[in-house]
Amino acid sequence: MATWKNLDKLAAFDKLAGLKNHVDIKEAMTGENGAVRVAKYSTPMAEGLSFNYAAKEVDDTVLAALADLAKEAELTDKFAELYNGAIINTGEKRHVLHHLARRQLGEDVIVDGVNKRDFYVSQQEKAADFAKKVHAGEVTNEAGEKFTTVVQIGIGGSDLGPRALYIALENWAKANNTAKMEAKFISNVDPDDAAAVLNSIDVAHSLFIVVSKSGTTLETLTNAAFVKDALTKEGLDPSKHMLAVTSETSPLAKSDEYLEAFFMDDFIGGRFSSSSAVGGVVLSLAFGPDIFARVLNGAAEEDKLATNENILENPDMLDALIGVYERNVQGYPSTTVLPYSQALSRFPAHLQQCDMESNGKSVNRFGEPVDYVTGPTIFGEPGTNGQHSFYQLLHQGTDIIPLQFVGFKDSQIGMDVEIEGSTSQKKLCANVAAQIVAFACGKDDEDLNKKFDGGRPSSIIIGKQLTPESLGALLAHFENKIMFQGFLWNVNSFDQEGVQLGKVLAKRVLAHDTDGALKAYSDLLEI
Amino acid sequence: MATWKNLDKLAAFDKLAGLKNHVDIKEAMTGENGAVRVAKYSTPMAEGLSFNYAAKEVDDTVLAALADLAKEAELTDKFAELYNGAIINTGEKRHVLHHLARRQLGEDVIVDGVNKRDFYVSQQEKAADFAKKVHAGEVTNEAGEKFTTVVQIGIGGSDLGPRALYIALENWAKANNTAKMEAKFISNVDPDDAAAVLNSIDVAHSLFIVVSKSGTTLETLTNAAFVKDALTKEGLDPSKHMLAVTSETSPLAKSDEYLEAFFMDDFIGGRFSSSSAVGGVVLSLAFGPDIFARVLNGAAEEDKLATNENILENPDMLDALIGVYERNVQGYPSTTVLPYSQALSRFPAHLQQCDMESNGKSVNRFGEPVDYVTGPTIFGEPGTNGQHSFYQLLHQGTDIIPLQFVGFKDSQIGMDVEIEGSTSQKKLCANVAAQIVAFACGKDDEDLNKKFDGGRPSSIIIGKQLTPESLGALLAHFENKIMFQGFLWNVNSFDQEGVQLGKVLAKRVLAHDTDGALKAYSDLLEI
Repeated sequence: MATWKNLDKLAAFDKLAGLKNHVDIKEAMTGENGAVRVAKYSTPMAEGLSFNYAAKEVDDTVLAALADLAKEAELTDKFAELYNGAIINTGEKRHVLHHLARRQLGEDVIVDGVNKRDFYVSQQEKAADFAKKVHAGEVTNEAGEKFTTVVQIGIGGSDLGPRALYIALENWAKANNTAKMEAKFISNVDPDDAAAVLNSIDVAHSLFIVVSKSGTTLETLTNAAFVKDALTKEGLDPSKHMLAVTSETSPLAKSDEYLEAFFMDDFIGGRFSSSSAVGGVVLSLAFGPDIFARVLNGAAEEDKLATNENILENPDMLDALIGVYERNVQGYPSTTVLPYSQALSRFPAHLQQCDMESNGKSVNRFGEPVDYVTGPTIFGEPGTNGQHSFYQLLHQGTDIIPLQFVGFKDSQIGMDVEIEGSTSQKKLCANVAAQIVAFACGKDDEDLNKKFDGGRPSSIIIGKQLTPESLGALLAHFENKIMFQGFLWNVNSFDQEGVQLGKVLAKRVLAHDTDGALKAYSDLLEI
Repeated sequence: MATWKNLDKLAAFDKLAGLKNHVDIKEAMTGENGAVRVAKYSTPMAEGLSFNYAAKEVDDTVLAALADLAKEAELTDKFAELYNGAIINTGEKRHVLHHLARRQLGEDVIVDGVNKRDFYVSQQEKAADFAKKVHAGEVTNEAGEKFTTVVQIGIGGSDLGPRALYIALENWAKANNTAKMEAKFISNVDPDDAAAVLNSIDVAHSLFIVVSKSGTTLETLTNAAFVKDALTKEGLDPSKHMLAVTSETSPLAKSDEYLEAFFMDDFIGGRFSSSSAVGGVVLSLAFGPDIFARVLNGAAEEDKLATNENILENPDMLDALIGVYERNVQGYPSTTVLPYSQALSRFPAHLQQCDMESNGKSVNRFGEPVDYVTGPTIFGEPGTNGQHSFYQLLHQGTDIIPLQFVGFKDSQIGMDVEIEGSTSQKKLCANVAAQIVAFACGKDDEDLNKKFDGGRPSSIIIGKQLTPESLGALLAHFENKIMFQGFLWNVNSFDQEGVQLGKVLAKRVLAHDTDGALKAYSDLLEI
C-alpha cells in the first residue's frame, strides 16, 4: 500500500523547491544548445505521438529531482492501486475505474460479484450492436425510416468530453467515409440551447441520448422533457426516439420511455467518462463502433506508458511533474493549452473541466487543509487563432503563463493550397515551431515596447495526424497527467463537492425559500 | 491635456493599496445586509441593463478611494481626448476612433481632410445598401440566383468579435423574422478550417468577405486563396463571390478580384472593430442593416454613460476600477466571464482577445517598464455549463478568481417547458442568483471537503433580453472597461507588438532560414 502524504511533507519536494529558477530557459534554448535540448528532451507517447519538453524549465538536475519526487510520492504504485480497484475516491468511498473501460490494464476488479471490466465492455458491445442496427436500418423511426442524426443531452462530463471528441473526428470521419450520423449536443438549461438544436434538425429522423449517471441532473432531465415535448408536438412517440445512458439504479434505467438504456456506474467520474458508454453510444452512432474502439485502443496504449516507473519513459507522469514544478515552485497560476488543430477547438474546454474540477481543491484526501496551491486555471483556443488574440499577453504580459502546444504534421481532410511556396498545413506547423522559440528565447530591442523577454516555458505534443488512435492517446495523456498531479497534491481528484452548494441554493430560489441577498438577486431577476 | 502617470505614482493608488482586504464579502453579503447591498450597489447601464456589484469587495470607503483614483488618473478626460481625436495609440502614433463608428460621441475628427465619423458612417451606409441589394436579389450570383450564405474570412478581431455577435443574435433574428442569410466564419490557417466550412455550404450561393485591414494577414490571404481555388474548381468566378473589407491603401482595395470593397482605417484596432465595416458587412448581410444599426445604437448609449465623471453613474469606469483593485491590491491573477446565455457562448472568447491583447503589456505608454501587474488572464464559458466544469475550482480551489456574470430575464427564442413548477429560463436565472450568493457567502461544514469558504467576489450585468441594443451596450461596456483599465495601468491598449516576433520566426521557418532550436522544431514537424 502506498503512503499518502501532502506535497510539502516530501523531502524530494523540499529539494525541488531549492531549484527555483534553476534553468534560464532563454539561455538554454538560444543557439545550438537549443537544438541539443530539442533532440534530448523528448519522450515517445502512444500511437506515434511524442512529448517534447525541451522548452520547459528543466535540465538533468531538475529532472533528477522530479524523478526523486515521483519515487517518494509513489506515483506509479498509486496508479496501480487505482486501476487494480483500491478506493481512491476517498470522499465518496468509490473505486476509480475509467482505465478498465479501455480494457487492457490491470487486474480484474470484482464489485458485488460483478467483474467491472466485463461490465464496461458489455455496455460498449451493446452500444456497438445497437449502432450497427441503426446504421443498417434495423432500428428505425416509427415510419420505418433511417435515423440520420443523434443528439446527446448531457452536461459537464456527459457533454464536454464526448463533444470535444466528436468535433475532433467529425472531419476525419467524413474524409475517411466513416461518418454515419450527424451529432448535436444539448447541454445548457438555457431553453435557447435546446430550442436552437431542435430548430436545426429533422426531429423525425433523430435519436436523442439522455446521459445522466444519477438520472437526477437538473439540466439534463429538463432538456429531456423539453425534447419529449417537442417530439410529442410533432406527433412522434418519444419512447421511439430516446435512449438513456445512466446507472442501473437510476430512475431512467428501467423506464419504458426509452428505446434502449446503456449503463455506467459510480466508479467512472463524469469528466473521465468519455471512454465509457457516455462517449461510446454517441460516438459509435456518429462514426461507427470500430472508430470508437480505435479511440479506446489509443487511450489504452497511453495508459500502458503511464505505468512506467522511469519518468523519462512516462510522458503523462513527466508532464504532471513539470506542471507541479511550475505551479508550486515557479509560482505560475495558469496554464494554457494550445492545439494547432481546428479539430481540437473544444479540447481545451474538456481539459478545463477535467483538470480544474479534479484538482481545484483546498483539502487533501483526508479532509485536511493543504498549505500549498493546487490545480491552476486552464484555458486555451486553437492556434493560429489564439496568436491573433491573447498571445499578446502571453508574450509581453506581466505574468508568466506556461504553454502546452499540440501539433500534427498532416491535416485531416487533405484539401490544401500552396501559396507563396507552402501549403496551409506547413504554415500552421511553421507557426507553432516559431511560437515555441519566440516564447522561450524572446528578442531584444532598444524599444522596450518591441522587446520580448522570452523565458516563457512550453511543451509540445507532436503527431503525424489526428486520428481515432492519436486522439485516444491524447485524451488518456491528459487524464493521467491530471491524476498524477492529484497524487502529488494529495487531493482527491475524483469528487466535486464544490458544485453542491450552488445546486442547493438554486433549488431554494425556485421554491421561493430565500432571504437576504439570495432573495434580492431573485427579485432582480424576477424569478 | 491629461497627465499620464504610472498607477503606482498616483497618491490615490497608495491610499487604495492601504485598503487591502478591507471588505469581508462573506460577512457583508450574509444576512439582511446582503439585501441592502444588492439594492444599493447597482448602477444603470444602457438599454435597460444594470451593473450590480454588491458581491464585489467594495463598500463606501473603497468606492470613495476608487473615485479619488478615477479623478487623479483623469479617466474621463482621457476618454474625451480619445474620442475627440488625440493620438492615444502612442506606439503606432494613431488616433483611436472606434467610438465614432457608433456615430454619436464627441467632436468631429478630421484627418488628412477626411471627417472620420462621416467616413465610418459612409462605409456602414455602403454596407447597408449592398446588403439590401443582396436581400432583394439585385446582386446575385452568376446564374442570377440569390445568395443565401455569407462567409467571413478573417482572424483575430476580424473574426472573434463579429462571430460572437453573430452567434449572439442568430436565434434572436430567427425568432424575430430578421434572419436574412446564414453566416459562417473561416479564421484558422489550418486547412481543415476552410475545408470544413466549404464542405458545409453551397458555394454557388455564397458570398465571401475577406477582412484584413492591411491586406497582408497571412492566414486571411491564404484562406482567401483557398476559397478562390474552391470556387474556380466549381466553375465559378471568384470575383463574383468575394467582397473585401480593408483599408483604402491595401492591395485588396483596388483589386478587380472583388465584387465590392468596404473600407476601414488604422484608427480602429482589430479587437475594437466590430462596430466598423468589419462587423457591419457580415451582420448587415446576415440580419439586415437595421439590426446592425440597433447594435450600434446600444453601443452609443453605453458610450455616453462612460463619459460620466461620477463613478457611480459610469458602469464601465466603475467595473474597470474594481478590476484594478482586484488585480493590483487584492492580487488576483485571473478573471472569469460567465454569461448565463447560450447565445453569448463565444462572447468570452471575444473578451479574451479584447482584454488580454489590449492590456497584456509590461511597458507603459512611454515605453518604460512598469513595476506592477497589468491585464489578467480572462476565460469563461456560458452558465449553467461552466457549473458542471471548472466551477469546482472557483468555489474550492486555492486561488480566488473574481467572477463577472451576465444574465437575462427572458430567453431569445421563447420555446420553453415548465418542469417541477418552473420554466428552463427561470431555472437558468435561479442558478445565477444562487451562484453569486454561494461564491460570496460560502457554507460551513464540519467536513472540510464540503465546506465553502466563500469570499469570492462577483458582479452581474442583468438585462431583460439579449437584443441588438443590449448586445451593443454589452459590447461597448467591456470595450470601455478595458480602455479605462489601460488608462489606469498607463499602458497603450491599442497596439500589439507582442504578436510580431512569432510572425517573423514563422516566415523564417517557411523560408528554411533557421538554426538551433528553430531548425530542430522545424525538422520534428517535417516543415
